[in-house]
Amino acid sequence: MPEHFADRLMAAIREKNSRVCVGIDPVPERLPGVLMPPDGRWTEAAISEAFNEFCSRIIRAVADHAAVVKFNSAFFEALSPLGVGLLDSLVATADKLGLLTILDAKRSDIGSTAAAYARAVFGRYPAEQGAVPDAVTVNPYLGSDGVFPFLAEAEELGAGIFVLVKTSNPSSAEVQDLDAGGWPVYRHVAELVKQWGDEWVGESGWSSVGAVAGATWPSELVDLRAAMPRTPFLVPGYGAQGGGAKDVLPAFDEDGLGAIVNSSRGIIYASERDPYADRFGPDEWDRAAAAAAKDMQKAINEAIEGR
Amino acid sequence: MPEHFADRLMAAIREKNSRVCVGIDPVPERLPGVLMPPDGRWTEAAISEAFNEFCSRIIRAVADHAAVVKFNSAFFEALSPLGVGLLDSLVATADKLGLLTILDAKRSDIGSTAAAYARAVFGRYPAEQGAVPDAVTVNPYLGSDGVFPFLAEAEELGAGIFVLVKTSNPSSAEVQDLDAGGWPVYRHVAELVKQWGDEWVGESGWSSVGAVAGATWPSELVDLRAAMPRTPFLVPGYGAQGGGAKDVLPAFDEDGLGAIVNSSRGIIYASERDPYADRFGPDEWDRAAAAAAKDMQKAINEAIEGR
Repeated sequence: MPEHFADRLMAAIREKNSRVCVGIDPVPERLPGVLMPPDGRWTEAAISEAFNEFCSRIIRAVADHAAVVKFNSAFFEALSPLGVGLLDSLVATADKLGLLTILDAKRSDIGSTAAAYARAVFGRYPAEQGAVPDAVTVNPYLGSDGVFPFLAEAEELGAGIFVLVKTSNPSSAEVQDLDAGGWPVYRHVAELVKQWGDEWVGESGWSSVGAVAGATWPSELVDLRAAMPRTPFLVPGYGAQGGGAKDVLPAFDEDGLGAIVNSSRGIIYASERDPYADRFGPDEWDRAAAAAAKDMQKAINEAIEGR
Repeated sequence: MPEHFADRLMAAIREKNSRVCVGIDPVPERLPGVLMPPDGRWTEAAISEAFNEFCSRIIRAVADHAAVVKFNSAFFEALSPLGVGLLDSLVATADKLGLLTILDAKRSDIGSTAAAYARAVFGRYPAEQGAVPDAVTVNPYLGSDGVFPFLAEAEELGAGIFVLVKTSNPSSAEVQDLDAGGWPVYRHVAELVKQWGDEWVGESGWSSVGAVAGATWPSELVDLRAAMPRTPFLVPGYGAQGGGAKDVLPAFDEDGLGAIVNSSRGIIYASERDPYADRFGPDEWDRAAAAAAKDMQKAINEAIEGR
């Protein structure tokens, strides 16, 4: 695999013909009943074991249909300290299956603190490690002081970052859409992301500094793609949050490259919802997830081919 | 102690006559030589043990001169999974000494993910816990969706949050100072923080929704205090980052309440610098930290009395 994150990402999209990123967001309340401990008691050890079974089966099942899996740090931190080892192990599982991995941590700090976060993500004390994530999400509110330390750590490893630009949630407008001289704040952030990324462009023509831009804002996606032509997009908000295949089209270039679209609950809990609930039993959550990922892969690819 | 975070905070400031918050930011490179493992190898276990000795001695030493200690999550995450248990243990140590504790995590996410982060901070799965932090720092870029889940979790525990408004670092201007309709972005964020906090005001007249406003921007502090009259301020940037006692004065009300001022490196590594390096040996880092905290306490109190 290439050494440059964006090159690896574009290669994975091409090889798998998939723009799907599966978000791994486990919560005990939504685990299939069959994973409930026999005595019904959710101890930390029981949750950890159930998360491991739930997530690793999903990762294996979706590996043919997804290019990337995204781990939401929060759900593993809520299970600390066991969650730390579990996350490491799941990243390694995904890695072995040829999936790229993103740690969705939305970190924001400066200087030596940001460097410590980067070290926490990409390789902890001391320099021993198994698999580490291929990329991490970063919050831009603190400016370049909060981004460069992640870039420095990422560069050594050929890893990448995705900077929050326009998030998919309803209240994102409260700060991100403030009108600053004719541009919303997120458009200024896009300009920063473009600048930060210009020195990180790989052979694929794409930068290892990516952007998070929500599927719930299709017209904003058009502007953001024009503003950041070499920036890979991580597009959340597909499925459960309301975005569809047509909504994410502006994120892709003419070759259908340049973006991955994330769905978390819509895939990992597919066995709970139509049409998958009819086709798969509650203990076949992995097969339901694979079917949902395959359907999402197909819907996006068809939308791209049909435009 | 009162049940409401801001009431506890103001009580602590009064009782100790201290506005000092000591930031606990340990890195192996700056630990005193005496803590180096005998074989010179910084294994994770060795770092954890050295961090524990270094930090717990500092916490005990500064307890008479500080109202609050702030743990920077990054430095403990960089030592995961051992860092998780270490952080828990240090929070408990501070708690027993009557110090309030802030987890400086600068988290930013929405909905169920933010709830999981809040659970990671204030009480993990299942509902067993020792001491948990009294407050956590939160990033506002995602708007209220990213703040309310922390508030909900905090409310149950009588804990608080500090929202990043204007951070102390040089590049904070890149996003926070964008001019949006005559107000910089951070001033709009201040308005949100005020709104979010209005329902959380305790008997002290202060809200449990606080704001982070850097000591490096004294004139901005004046505006922010006027904009958020019931919002406790966590003021970073004192000491190593350049802010002095005069610079932080605008953060305080006429009673000298309403803010705590953080110094991290300036206190915990005081034994490395003048005038403390002359007075204390490198293995007396705790006594040097206590002297630096006492000097900071005095400088701020004198500035308040002298204005």
